[in-house]
Amino acid sequence: MKDRVRRILGRLSPKADALLIANSVDPHLDGSFFYTFEVPGGLFEGSVAIGLPDGRLHVLSSPLEEESARQAAKRDPSVEVHVMTSGNKERLVQEILKREVPSKPTLAVNFHEVTHEAFLALGKMLPEAQWVDATAAIRQERGVKDANEVARIEEAARIGSAVAREIPSMLRAGIEEIELAAEIEYAMMKRGASGRSFSTIVGFGPNSAEPHYAPQKVRLVAGQSLVCDFGAYFSRYACDITRSFHFGPRDEEMKRVHETVFEAQRAALDLLRPGVAGEVVHAAAQKVVDASPWKGRFTHGLGHALGLSVHDAGVGLAPGVKDLLEPGMVVTVEPGIYLPGHGGVRIEDDVVITKDGYRFLTTAPREYLEVGA
Amino acid sequence: MKDRVRRILGRLSPKADALLIANSVDPHLDGSFFYTFEVPGGLFEGSVAIGLPDGRLHVLSSPLEEESARQAAKRDPSVEVHVMTSGNKERLVQEILKREVPSKPTLAVNFHEVTHEAFLALGKMLPEAQWVDATAAIRQERGVKDANEVARIEEAARIGSAVAREIPSMLRAGIEEIELAAEIEYAMMKRGASGRSFSTIVGFGPNSAEPHYAPQKVRLVAGQSLVCDFGAYFSRYACDITRSFHFGPRDEEMKRVHETVFEAQRAALDLLRPGVAGEVVHAAAQKVVDASPWKGRFTHGLGHALGLSVHDAGVGLAPGVKDLLEPGMVVTVEPGIYLPGHGGVRIEDDVVITKDGYRFLTTAPREYLEVGA
Repeated sequence: MKDRVRRILGRLSPKADALLIANSVDPHLDGSFFYTFEVPGGLFEGSVAIGLPDGRLHVLSSPLEEESARQAAKRDPSVEVHVMTSGNKERLVQEILKREVPSKPTLAVNFHEVTHEAFLALGKMLPEAQWVDATAAIRQERGVKDANEVARIEEAARIGSAVAREIPSMLRAGIEEIELAAEIEYAMMKRGASGRSFSTIVGFGPNSAEPHYAPQKVRLVAGQSLVCDFGAYFSRYACDITRSFHFGPRDEEMKRVHETVFEAQRAALDLLRPGVAGEVVHAAAQKVVDASPWKGRFTHGLGHALGLSVHDAGVGLAPGVKDLLEPGMVVTVEPGIYLPGHGGVRIEDDVVITKDGYRFLTTAPREYLEVGA
Repeated sequence: MKDRVRRILGRLSPKADALLIANSVDPHLDGSFFYTFEVPGGLFEGSVAIGLPDGRLHVLSSPLEEESARQAAKRDPSVEVHVMTSGNKERLVQEILKREVPSKPTLAVNFHEVTHEAFLALGKMLPEAQWVDATAAIRQERGVKDANEVARIEEAARIGSAVAREIPSMLRAGIEEIELAAEIEYAMMKRGASGRSFSTIVGFGPNSAEPHYAPQKVRLVAGQSLVCDFGAYFSRYACDITRSFHFGPRDEEMKRVHETVFEAQRAALDLLRPGVAGEVVHAAAQKVVDASPWKGRFTHGLGHALGLSVHDAGVGLAPGVKDLLEPGMVVTVEPGIYLPGHGGVRIEDDVVITKDGYRFLTTAPREYLEVGA
């Protein structure tokens, strides 16, 4: 992606002669590798991408993924693929840089996603280089999605939304949390997801009061609320959606909790537009919860950037975030209220910031819904 | 896990006053965090674990996962949980270290899994500290699994093997690679997996000749070979299994390829025992392939360590690996032969090294199997 490489390097000050993206072993891969090199499949463990100010990209691939890499390079003439065989990686990197950049170059690295070990290895490989941090430049570039990226997140969100609509029909007394999680993930895959973008959260009753709960062999009982937080990957891009339901008979308090969370999300959405700081949007949702009987029960940030990762580089909606929203940013909006020992409600949608507001990428109904027990 | 913390610090030379494990944002988490702190659920993004030579562990948890962290600490009295609120993380780390270690301490960090950014943040937090690399010590400790870890990998492998046995019944003309991948992952979840340990590989016909292929909307056609490479997570531990099938009618060449891969695996397995170097085991499989008509078509390492990660810290079976196998090591044994444009065969099993040999953790049939088209 010639433009992406050029723009990242263009944002750096002082200028760097090249951008080096170094993957380690899965899961210690740099999402920016796949931001600059659009290859549909493969892990590219140990691979290095070397981006140049004119936008060209050298990619070192292992023989395992050579075929994928070469096909991707055919579609993008700014990419040149080199095959690493055991032992020649260091020499390849040195040779490419010798050809492309001055001696004693300034090289930019994504400190946010490179391992310390991989960074030290680069330093050993290139002892004359000066190193600068590309984290902020990458964050700014990856934070604002282009139309192609939005389309991929939107497709992931379409899959997630379709599955969210199916959840009520999956519920029955006695279903286990892990069983429902399996059904949700299967439904996403059947609809074209390449996988889940994170470990699905399904919490019944008191377990729904823990925001980062992991599903267990716990059965659904009539009268419980439940939280389902899940997401699809599509073409390497993530969505992230949460829907909360009540498995009847009614619990009046949980119904009012749901309505309050819905109202908090509404208040936040109303503020979404370019030029608004992330913390301001969070505060609007917080204010609604804190004016309710459940003051203090909204215990996490309102939202995060979304893209190649589910917790993506970019402006989030949380206390202390002074960064301003810009058109093309994709964020989650996910207020929640958690009553320990009883239950929780979270409603989460993905939106893209537009010229004068926002647009929903997720579309499933978000209102209070009672499913017959 | 008092013993694990103590043993890692005991292996370091020169000695360190404490081990610091720092998580960043998912997927940039350190598997060693969950090696020293046994907590069943949660991501623990931004968390820090501080291990001391006597085995005690301080864990900083966000409020999101406080409940899980506290319950885990109840089961392990060597763990003390501290809740990070926004802005107090740095102060908490400083206070704990002030109390527990001398001023100007030597602190060990897992360079292999910490991001460079997180490492720099630790340096800023603790400007008087000396830093040493705990990678080798952690690799040695994590490389040899205790009975509890083997039991968890074995359960993951039991799930993977059961699903491998089901694959023939899932095959039909016209099924898509991504559909079969969805069925495989669903079957693992239904059998109790908490997720897949990596992105499932399903390749039909020519696509099976690419070892790290990602499944597409490509349909199965009679006469094709196929490769299915997948794994379950169970209780944070991974398995990794590959089975190859032929969807009839017979292709005599692919049948002989399968038999050669089977024989290559057999030759490698026969060597598995404590005291043998990883490269020696690889060479045995390589030799079988290179004595066949498919010389040079085994294009990757024979196997890798398996544990908390699917490509785990530990001794692998690959060219250049001089490290010796030890009882308790868990490795994959996965020779393959790839015929570009035609098809591939890979057979992968997980084994634990025993006192005088090895024991299979995966159990599904590995012989050539023709499924009726």
